[in-house]
Amino acid sequence: MGVNIMRELNVELVAVGDELLVGDVVNTNAVTLGRRLTAAGLRVGGVSTVGDGLDAMTDVLAQAVRRADAVIVCGGLGPTSDDRTREAVAAVAGVALRRDPAVEEWLRARYTGMNRTLTALGLQQADVPEGGRSLPNANGSAPGVCVETGDVVVYAIPGPPHEMIAMTEQQVLPDLLRRAGSPPARARRQLLTASVGEGVVAAMLEPLEKQLSTAGGAVEVAYLATAGQTRVKLTATAPGGDVAVNAAATRARELLGDCVYGEADDTLASVVQALLIGRDATVAVAESLTGGLLAGALTEVPGASAVVRGSVTAYATDLKAGVLGVDTDLLAAEGAVHPQVAARMAEGVRRMMSGTYGVATTGVAGPDPQDGKPVGTVYIAVAGPEGTTVLSLLFSGSRARIREMTVVRALDLLRRVVAGLPAEQDPACTG
Amino acid sequence: MGVNIMRELNVELVAVGDELLVGDVVNTNAVTLGRRLTAAGLRVGGVSTVGDGLDAMTDVLAQAVRRADAVIVCGGLGPTSDDRTREAVAAVAGVALRRDPAVEEWLRARYTGMNRTLTALGLQQADVPEGGRSLPNANGSAPGVCVETGDVVVYAIPGPPHEMIAMTEQQVLPDLLRRAGSPPARARRQLLTASVGEGVVAAMLEPLEKQLSTAGGAVEVAYLATAGQTRVKLTATAPGGDVAVNAAATRARELLGDCVYGEADDTLASVVQALLIGRDATVAVAESLTGGLLAGALTEVPGASAVVRGSVTAYATDLKAGVLGVDTDLLAAEGAVHPQVAARMAEGVRRMMSGTYGVATTGVAGPDPQDGKPVGTVYIAVAGPEGTTVLSLLFSGSRARIREMTVVRALDLLRRVVAGLPAEQDPACTG
Repeated sequence: MGVNIMRELNVELVAVGDELLVGDVVNTNAVTLGRRLTAAGLRVGGVSTVGDGLDAMTDVLAQAVRRADAVIVCGGLGPTSDDRTREAVAAVAGVALRRDPAVEEWLRARYTGMNRTLTALGLQQADVPEGGRSLPNANGSAPGVCVETGDVVVYAIPGPPHEMIAMTEQQVLPDLLRRAGSPPARARRQLLTASVGEGVVAAMLEPLEKQLSTAGGAVEVAYLATAGQTRVKLTATAPGGDVAVNAAATRARELLGDCVYGEADDTLASVVQALLIGRDATVAVAESLTGGLLAGALTEVPGASAVVRGSVTAYATDLKAGVLGVDTDLLAAEGAVHPQVAARMAEGVRRMMSGTYGVATTGVAGPDPQDGKPVGTVYIAVAGPEGTTVLSLLFSGSRARIREMTVVRALDLLRRVVAGLPAEQDPACTG
Repeated sequence: MGVNIMRELNVELVAVGDELLVGDVVNTNAVTLGRRLTAAGLRVGGVSTVGDGLDAMTDVLAQAVRRADAVIVCGGLGPTSDDRTREAVAAVAGVALRRDPAVEEWLRARYTGMNRTLTALGLQQADVPEGGRSLPNANGSAPGVCVETGDVVVYAIPGPPHEMIAMTEQQVLPDLLRRAGSPPARARRQLLTASVGEGVVAAMLEPLEKQLSTAGGAVEVAYLATAGQTRVKLTATAPGGDVAVNAAATRARELLGDCVYGEADDTLASVVQALLIGRDATVAVAESLTGGLLAGALTEVPGASAVVRGSVTAYATDLKAGVLGVDTDLLAAEGAVHPQVAARMAEGVRRMMSGTYGVATTGVAGPDPQDGKPVGTVYIAVAGPEGTTVLSLLFSGSRARIREMTVVRALDLLRRVVAGLPAEQDPACTG
């Protein structure tokens, strides 16, 4: 504590709630916390999810305490009979719960202010394990608790994301960092690629991997694939490895060329936005199978209004003609799923909304074929001052996956056209 | 096995991968598996996430085996040095790995067919714990494994979602259900509400909760809140409770009135789609702050093309006039964030796309205020044959949350208008 070397604290997360086990909700708290703690230089060694039952919760919590230096428990702090986290934490710490009079007073005032009755169960929110302390909640009624057991610190924080985030930022993280000491020295770079498969990215980086392994493995290479994208993670295996990591990143960028669209926290949408701003350009969107998701992705980034003119979803075929001006003869002859239709949609929306660029998607998301085209057939077009580029694709998978892959490829095609890169990546670069 | 009573199998899930710990990806496999197993009548007792390291993985896996009747491990089966799941499974089962010649032959043929080199690491994909068996993978190169240790069965399946789902459906689930015997008798109903807070829903159901607790607690009530929605779960505490659960659901529907939009797997979009089909009606969408997400949500449901005409995202203010026909004087006087602007957008897109209904959103998603309106100010309008309805809202939270809440409230307003319900829910019903 307070020394100038960072201990590598091993943090485990425990998420509480039956709803997480049955798949009713995604455990976004684990993602948020994992990202935040990692960014702060801490190591997340494990995540457990457990139901509301006291025995199971106590067991899982005890295992986490056995393995970790710090445990963060999310959820189960509320005013209902389901909420047993305080009891579990006290049981694992081997202490009793005692009611904190200051917290009780705060709770009573809060409930009176909200014109609500504070039940006996509700009052349990003022209970704190002996030797521990209550963590004030600025955004809700359930305070957190913090207690040490042996060398391990346990924080219990509320499950609702905005309460969880605020309590983590303001109380848990500062306390953890104080315990950990100074920030970490382990260097890390992450290169982001789109439109190429993980296997292809790995094959392109083979020379680098060989070179690194010959050089003694000071830098680790790892791959993380999501729909249409692969994240290449370069990490120093020991503190002080930033020179090695930067050299590896430079070499990786050479090998991957324009398949790399950004680093770290960039997104395709944020990169496209920056490119458009740099060229004082705007974009308009015409969608069919993606039904609004492409425009939704482009406007996810704050500041989108500077570059996104707007979009048209021409889901009904007649609107492709009526609103976007696609030739009715073309639609009658070829149907709505055709490369020429994508091109005319992109050109039509560009004209209609006075965008520098127009980007369009048409295709078959499924579950049924359309206009004689199989599920997964997709055409993407970008129209701009230099002309129109069309990409023909065939995806497999669910309706949701086909729509998601189409959004990624459309954003990447737009990036390439705006940046003046070849519209089709190098053949070696296609998955 | 084969008997006619279902054992309540306690299944634990273990997800493997450093990327899950640091928050690079959401553990969607846990959600998918949790939902699928629960739907099949199995109980998911816990979910653990662990990194790629062999020791941690073995420890977590051993704990899951200690607690559960069946364990499903996802990920870590591939051809790289990171992939240690086979070793961990064998270690926990206390057996050695042996190479399966049939799997090796299949692997060699597959790699040759893909023109790829099968490395020594790649060959490890043919390794199976002694006494266990390989699970064929129809969608990738990494076969799964299945082995029993004591009374517990362990399945290791690949991490990529489409491989994971196929192997679960075709191999893991049938095997689990065979072990469990006949389907469960525990009755469950889930009512879905939108636009009212969890606390309000709980307050409305207080008479039911009192009645149930007086009646001896044969039915449990639980609440699950997500952005703008609350799921009310009614579950029989003992087998054979379907009469009690159905009676409770009927009473809950009386108490909640038109706040309930559906049950179980319904979504707001699927309910709106069914309402529109039943009235032979269509909808067109005009968006500002939601930027395409509302249309994206409406087209998420297969069959959307029967009812969704299309959408316009008029992100730039001038397009609200130029494309949607919103009065330029109104925009000049009030700015783009105004209830009248929402109304004119809904009416404009309805006319332009010949929809029975038009639905529109305008507001401030942030991070900065706009046109003098604070972040979170939102106006939603639905235009239809009977006129135009506008909802004025103020949300708190992040840009993403404000956009998400707006989509939920817009879908719910559309539902109310199409169904002929009051546009504003009963005052008692507002959160």
